[in-house]
Amino acid sequence: MPRQDLEYPKETHNTVKRYNHLAEYSLRTIHSIINSTPLLHVSFNTPNSPYPATIPMIGQMGSFDRPSADLGDVLDLYIHGYISARLTNLTRTAEGLPVTVSASTVDGLLLSLTPFSHGYNFRSAVLFGHAAVVTDPAEKLYAMELITNKVVPNRWNESRSPPTAGEMAATAVMRVKIDTGSAKVRTGPPSDDKGDMESEEVREKVWVGTVPVYTVVGEPKVAEYNLAKEVPKTLVEWRKEANQDAKGYAELAAVKSLAPKKKKEDE
Amino acid sequence: MPRQDLEYPKETHNTVKRYNHLAEYSLRTIHSIINSTPLLHVSFNTPNSPYPATIPMIGQMGSFDRPSADLGDVLDLYIHGYISARLTNLTRTAEGLPVTVSASTVDGLLLSLTPFSHGYNFRSAVLFGHAAVVTDPAEKLYAMELITNKVVPNRWNESRSPPTAGEMAATAVMRVKIDTGSAKVRTGPPSDDKGDMESEEVREKVWVGTVPVYTVVGEPKVAEYNLAKEVPKTLVEWRKEANQDAKGYAELAAVKSLAPKKKKEDE
Repeated sequence: MPRQDLEYPKETHNTVKRYNHLAEYSLRTIHSIINSTPLLHVSFNTPNSPYPATIPMIGQMGSFDRPSADLGDVLDLYIHGYISARLTNLTRTAEGLPVTVSASTVDGLLLSLTPFSHGYNFRSAVLFGHAAVVTDPAEKLYAMELITNKVVPNRWNESRSPPTAGEMAATAVMRVKIDTGSAKVRTGPPSDDKGDMESEEVREKVWVGTVPVYTVVGEPKVAEYNLAKEVPKTLVEWRKEANQDAKGYAELAAVKSLAPKKKKEDE
Repeated sequence: MPRQDLEYPKETHNTVKRYNHLAEYSLRTIHSIINSTPLLHVSFNTPNSPYPATIPMIGQMGSFDRPSADLGDVLDLYIHGYISARLTNLTRTAEGLPVTVSASTVDGLLLSLTPFSHGYNFRSAVLFGHAAVVTDPAEKLYAMELITNKVVPNRWNESRSPPTAGEMAATAVMRVKIDTGSAKVRTGPPSDDKGDMESEEVREKVWVGTVPVYTVVGEPKVAEYNLAKEVPKTLVEWRKEANQDAKGYAELAAVKSLAPKKKKEDE
């Protein structure tokens, strides 16, 4: 489905000021970083504390009104985690609770000539929005299926569903209506300053390159109480594909700049 | 060096309320999660925004006054990342800027009978403290070496150091004086509710187990401008060891509960 590449509006709190040639505001890029990061960090303010609270949560982009929506569309973020009475109370305002949701993945170690140019190849995204606890049972069910299938594709159908009334009551899900967001993606080999690049002595002494870093989904370990005959095919196939993709991306990003065209103009 | 196992004080903002049998307040546990997580999420408040700002940064625990301090000692967190003029200004108070620093790692996917018991084996830590920009050149140098060696051990000595005056001026490091913190560590196979455990039908239909998840440090890719003859031995050996450790931990945690003794009392 060809559609325009939507971007989040640039506002004070989401505008990337440094390394801004790495910045992306494309919904598709931001949403796909959120979806591919297993744990999101959700930060919000609480009364009487100078510190923002930060909770690791599982989350996935979705649209209850239009479940077939594309990743580049306007979507909500559904999150599941420890939703305390305190947090629930904080969301009880007309607008919901302002939250900042972050996701980061390291794709490689950048080993340059000088320590000061060391760093990572990475993908990071941040979303700003208003969170509310989902109360409509149909929307809650939609969100729970979405989040379960984030852990392993199709797991909702391959485990004991639908949920019991007790499970529904005991589980809370939040919907974050997105205000805006941004992403930063760094790929390619390390880079160094002119002074060091011109010194043969330094270049002969210091090894420079990128070390790809990626996540591996390992060999499933059956639980003692399992009675099912075999590991689900979906899991076997997804593992293989996920592992190939992760390694492939990190290795490609290690040697090649995959930055969007924008980058060229900035250089 | 035998020393007592220090714990952070339990205050409102760091006391883990749910799954509190997973909670740990040991400095050693919390500091080791921070040190082994490549990117930390640093959150803080900014005037005129309802959203906390969150920045991914590289950080490592250390003690400038006593560099040989043990991981279980009282330490500061040194962080490096994009330290904007705005952020620098915010830290200019007598106490420094209140920041919340989070680190999370997924160690496995928990595939249980019911979607509602799905989740991750994970390690997560949060630290609350006050951040200030490091101004003492000796402390800054100490912190930069610490942070560079987090990327790859001994990299400071194996790259072009010490830094030039220009590099020192262009790079900012923050020190976070820790107020308190907490960690949560989940290990072991999935668990299910009695109702599902008692149903042979469900247990024969749904495969249950843990899928270990771990990070791999891949094959180094040499940069085009490299003139050094070989990949440093330290890197070769560290890769091997880091990969064995990561896989070994995730696979062990997949089948065995590694929770501290406390857990037994809670059950």
